[in-house]
Amino acid sequence: MRLLKVDTLEEARRKLLDAAAGKKPGTETVSFTDSLGRIAAEDIAAAENVPGFAKSTVDGYAVKAANTQGVSESVPVFLDIVEEIQMGVMPGEKILDGQASYVPTGGMLPEGADAVVMIEHTEKFDEKSIAVYDAVSDGRNVIRAGEDIRAGSAFIGAGTLIRPQEIGVMASAGVSRLEVYRPWKVSVISTGDELIGIEEPAGAGRTRDINTYSLSASAVKYGFEVVSTAVLKDDREQIRAAIRDAMAVSDVVLVSGGSSQGEKDYTADIMDELSDVGVFTHGIAIKPGKPTILAYDGGSGTVLAGLPGHPAAAVMIFELLIGWLYRRLTGMKEPKRTVARMTENVAAAGGKATCLLLELREGSDGIYEAEPILGKSGLMTTLTRADGYAVIDTNSEGLKQGEPVAVVLF
Amino acid sequence: MRLLKVDTLEEARRKLLDAAAGKKPGTETVSFTDSLGRIAAEDIAAAENVPGFAKSTVDGYAVKAANTQGVSESVPVFLDIVEEIQMGVMPGEKILDGQASYVPTGGMLPEGADAVVMIEHTEKFDEKSIAVYDAVSDGRNVIRAGEDIRAGSAFIGAGTLIRPQEIGVMASAGVSRLEVYRPWKVSVISTGDELIGIEEPAGAGRTRDINTYSLSASAVKYGFEVVSTAVLKDDREQIRAAIRDAMAVSDVVLVSGGSSQGEKDYTADIMDELSDVGVFTHGIAIKPGKPTILAYDGGSGTVLAGLPGHPAAAVMIFELLIGWLYRRLTGMKEPKRTVARMTENVAAAGGKATCLLLELREGSDGIYEAEPILGKSGLMTTLTRADGYAVIDTNSEGLKQGEPVAVVLF
Repeated sequence: MRLLKVDTLEEARRKLLDAAAGKKPGTETVSFTDSLGRIAAEDIAAAENVPGFAKSTVDGYAVKAANTQGVSESVPVFLDIVEEIQMGVMPGEKILDGQASYVPTGGMLPEGADAVVMIEHTEKFDEKSIAVYDAVSDGRNVIRAGEDIRAGSAFIGAGTLIRPQEIGVMASAGVSRLEVYRPWKVSVISTGDELIGIEEPAGAGRTRDINTYSLSASAVKYGFEVVSTAVLKDDREQIRAAIRDAMAVSDVVLVSGGSSQGEKDYTADIMDELSDVGVFTHGIAIKPGKPTILAYDGGSGTVLAGLPGHPAAAVMIFELLIGWLYRRLTGMKEPKRTVARMTENVAAAGGKATCLLLELREGSDGIYEAEPILGKSGLMTTLTRADGYAVIDTNSEGLKQGEPVAVVLF
Repeated sequence: MRLLKVDTLEEARRKLLDAAAGKKPGTETVSFTDSLGRIAAEDIAAAENVPGFAKSTVDGYAVKAANTQGVSESVPVFLDIVEEIQMGVMPGEKILDGQASYVPTGGMLPEGADAVVMIEHTEKFDEKSIAVYDAVSDGRNVIRAGEDIRAGSAFIGAGTLIRPQEIGVMASAGVSRLEVYRPWKVSVISTGDELIGIEEPAGAGRTRDINTYSLSASAVKYGFEVVSTAVLKDDREQIRAAIRDAMAVSDVVLVSGGSSQGEKDYTADIMDELSDVGVFTHGIAIKPGKPTILAYDGGSGTVLAGLPGHPAAAVMIFELLIGWLYRRLTGMKEPKRTVARMTENVAAAGGKATCLLLELREGSDGIYEAEPILGKSGLMTTLTRADGYAVIDTNSEGLKQGEPVAVVLF
């Protein structure tokens, strides 16, 4: 395994995707009402036209458009009223030349009609006829059958994150169940002799465990299921047993701490030993996050990731690698970035990419100003101050004051 | 009640906030591990310093910075090794002039030391001493006690949406419980003679109920609890009874359909009758979404909102009014917008604001191109195609091709 060279972020991502190509999440069928925040695992096709029939988009009179040609405020046309169509009821009568039927917004257009004149542009002449003061073209104020969704067409693509509007459109098309990806099962292991739990007294050189909590929450944010967590001393056999046990029940095992090259840093050796593909990345040229380990075990189908012990770096690397891999495998779109203007110059880190945390403030012209958060990477509050981050490329010369920067909100 | 004039969006928002000022959600105490996606209801203060002691950010030797003054690659200083400090253990010895102790990343700085020299800039001379090749300043490679969070300081403000990083920072500060806002209880009532359920056969002038599902999902997206849903015919007594029953168990009652001025549109009358503050907005000068009704009942503490029957408009008005009100009352920040460039001119709607749906595409220079989705407002697929929306102000002259536009992602 001894890897002599660190990878760029792009190299690490490519290797991870190559190794874990078969790791596409399984699928399950759920009710469309339970699908909010899930990812469609297949194209969803409509069983029926939406709308199912031509309907009016206004309160007015259904007519033959040709009968209104040349009509204006001063030159009305008089039409005979056939019927008053009710919501949710089939029209009883066909429209012939010289005829009109009242139709409410959302009501079904009668046979023979091809447009609707808004009620404001008509006048009731007597019980049996109206004056029409507006010329309408074919299809005016009408939604045709299938105009929203055509029967058989895929109206939600595989990889779509289901929002309230997708749930609405499934309701409109009569799709009550759909196939979505199952969440990955994730285990989180924090290692370090110094770690103590949230309820233990602080002090005496000991530090509260952070990564178990923040990485579990990151996993939950992606919809993953956290199946186990453990906080362990830097003990090779304990860590080995914990990783092996976690691999049996997890799609992803995250191990934070123990990923740099210090004497007690066994994680890479253990991961290499326990996985058939082995460790393919040990070190990424990114700041923060250099001591990152990636391995894959095809037998159990487990992604193994050794994350930095620094809590801010661990969360960032989770976003940049594990979150990214999940989006790639499910076909989900990358999250939309926002654009902001740098408030000051930021130098690039020579030979490394930089994941720069940014705080956004309203600018005078509606464009955000992005203030870099330049605290030491061990500080957790750099992450809570941040509205998002930008990745400055390895080959970049840095960012200049006033320069636009693409910010991933998180 | 008879309101003769429609409100602008700003007027409607101001009236809603005035009426519902006392409607701030209740609070509850939860474990910090259950707080992801919740909103902090109070400032959260640290009980202890983070870190609790000065610690090293590198593997190296803890020294007195003054002892390294003038040191360089060619002019090293020799220091006596006092001890090898272990992770999670208090140093045993104080550092004096001419002394150094090994300290690992995250290890506690010994008394007397004020900086750490990276191990790469040292050389072990013999068992008892090292050569140091780098001059370090006071505080170099050290995080001081309380440098991340000072004991007693508020490190998460009231109104903060809890993300994974806030959970991590609470863990670091030993905060295991916090006060968050309770979700609003929401009821959704859809009205219309034409509505049929998702499992019923389509056709014959009838339309599938969409709003119950999409508005429930919108509510869930905000973390609200949907306590009841109903699909009703346009029957005054049925609608009245359903709204009255919903008011008894809900913070917000959403009624879609029946909000324009047609003969069967009773919603405004009923809401006015059932609420002590009464209806204060009937009609908003926004496209789509004009037939919106807002009322408030102080007795039961219920926001009543009559939303347009058009599904796309109903979801938009929910976002613009109910979601907005919740953020205002909890002190939550408005969601960050992204900036995109219009692909074509869009005219303003004279005298009305426009809520313009936009599809975003990658532009050549990293700035998104925003293509307006100009379908008829009755089409549900306009909403699923959209990545976000922009509100064009009443007094705007519209948007020009190439002009930057602020997009709310949704």
